[in-house]
Amino acid sequence: MNILKSTIEKMDQHYRATLINSLPGYKCLQLVGTISENEHSNVGIFNSIFHIGASPALLGMIFRPGSKDHDTLKNIIRTESYTFNNVTENFYQKAHQTSARYPSGCSEFVECGLTEYFIPDFESPFVAESTIKIAMKLKEIIPITTNQTTMVIGEIVHILVNEDLISADGYVDHQKAQTITVSGLDSYFNTLPIARLPYAKPQNQTFIP
Amino acid sequence: MNILKSTIEKMDQHYRATLINSLPGYKCLQLVGTISENEHSNVGIFNSIFHIGASPALLGMIFRPGSKDHDTLKNIIRTESYTFNNVTENFYQKAHQTSARYPSGCSEFVECGLTEYFIPDFESPFVAESTIKIAMKLKEIIPITTNQTTMVIGEIVHILVNEDLISADGYVDHQKAQTITVSGLDSYFNTLPIARLPYAKPQNQTFIP
Repeated sequence: MNILKSTIEKMDQHYRATLINSLPGYKCLQLVGTISENEHSNVGIFNSIFHIGASPALLGMIFRPGSKDHDTLKNIIRTESYTFNNVTENFYQKAHQTSARYPSGCSEFVECGLTEYFIPDFESPFVAESTIKIAMKLKEIIPITTNQTTMVIGEIVHILVNEDLISADGYVDHQKAQTITVSGLDSYFNTLPIARLPYAKPQNQTFIP
Repeated sequence: MNILKSTIEKMDQHYRATLINSLPGYKCLQLVGTISENEHSNVGIFNSIFHIGASPALLGMIFRPGSKDHDTLKNIIRTESYTFNNVTENFYQKAHQTSARYPSGCSEFVECGLTEYFIPDFESPFVAESTIKIAMKLKEIIPITTNQTTMVIGEIVHILVNEDLISADGYVDHQKAQTITVSGLDSYFNTLPIARLPYAKPQNQTFIP
C-alpha cells in the first residue's frame, strides 16, 4: 500500500495523529520535571527526546504549540532548569496519567501518585521512582517555523544513577534499569536484547551472513 | 551516584560518547536512503529521529558535524529527497554495517548486502528489506549553534506499508512489522508489549493502583 501525502492530508485528524505518531517506531520516553512560578512541581510525559551531542552532553526535545506542553516549556524558559526521568513498568500507568489536563495549580506528582525528589543546588524536581535521573540546564531554544513547534536544547549537568547500571565502557544498561519504551502516544513496551554489535569497519563485512 | 557536569567533561572521549549516547534510553532507529551526485545509492543508519508534527506530517533528525553523516546530508540538501526505512531483526547486522566508513563512490547497499527499492516519481532509494518505508521531502534545515550539528526537517510524502500493519484507528503495529529499537550506538532490542493505555483524563485517576 502506498499512502500519498494528499491522502494523509485528507485523513480524519485523530486517525492521522495516531498514524504519524506511531509511524517511525519506538521512541525515547521521559518524564520531564519542572517548577512553576507558584513553586508547584510539574511533571509531564514526553517522547520527542533525542541525542544532540556528547561533548558538551546535549539532549533535545520538541514542544508542540500551545496545549499542555506549554506549562513545562514556560517553566523551562523561566528557570532554565528541568529534569529527565526514565519510565519503568513499575509506574508507567502513573507516568501516562501525567498527560491528563489537570487544572493549573495542581501538581501532577500529587495527582498521579509520583514522588518528588530534590538535590541541593538544583531547582527542578526529579521523579523518585525513576532509576535514571538527569538534571538539565537550558542552552538554546529554537522555533521551528514549519509548524510552530519549539525545540529545546539542554546540557546534562547531573546524572543520578546507581553505578551498577553503567558498564565498564560507559554503556548504560537499560534492561537492568528496567527502562521501557513507547510507540505512538500510548503503547508501552519492555525490551528483549538481540545483540550489542562491534564498531563497524569496512573489513568487518565477513560477519554478515 | 551523582555524576556532575565537571566529571562528564573530564571523561575519556569514548567512555563519554558511549555513556551519553546510551543515557536517554531506547531510540527511533531508521536506515536513511539517499542518492549521491554520481547517482550512487547511499544508505546509513541513524537513531536521532523524532516526531515533529502530524499535520503537516513532519519528522526531524540530527546530523553530526562532518564525518560520515555528511554524505547523507549533502545528498538531502541537493535532492531535497530521502527515505526512512525501519530495521528488523532479519537484517539488523547489515543495517549496523552501513555505519562503516566506506570509500566515497561505494554504495552501502552493495557493500552491506541490502536491496534498493525505487518507486516512480521519487528519486531516493528505499530499503527493500524494511517493512515500513517512508519517503521524505526536505522542508527546513536548522543549524544548531551550540555544537555545530544540523537539524533536518522533512515532510512525509509516501508511506509504503502492508495495510495489515495499520490498525483501524491508524496505529502502526511495530510488533507485527518486526521493528527493532536501539540503545546507544550499537545495542539492538526487540520489544515485548506491556499495554496500550487510554487517553488520560483527570477523572481517570481511579485506574491508578
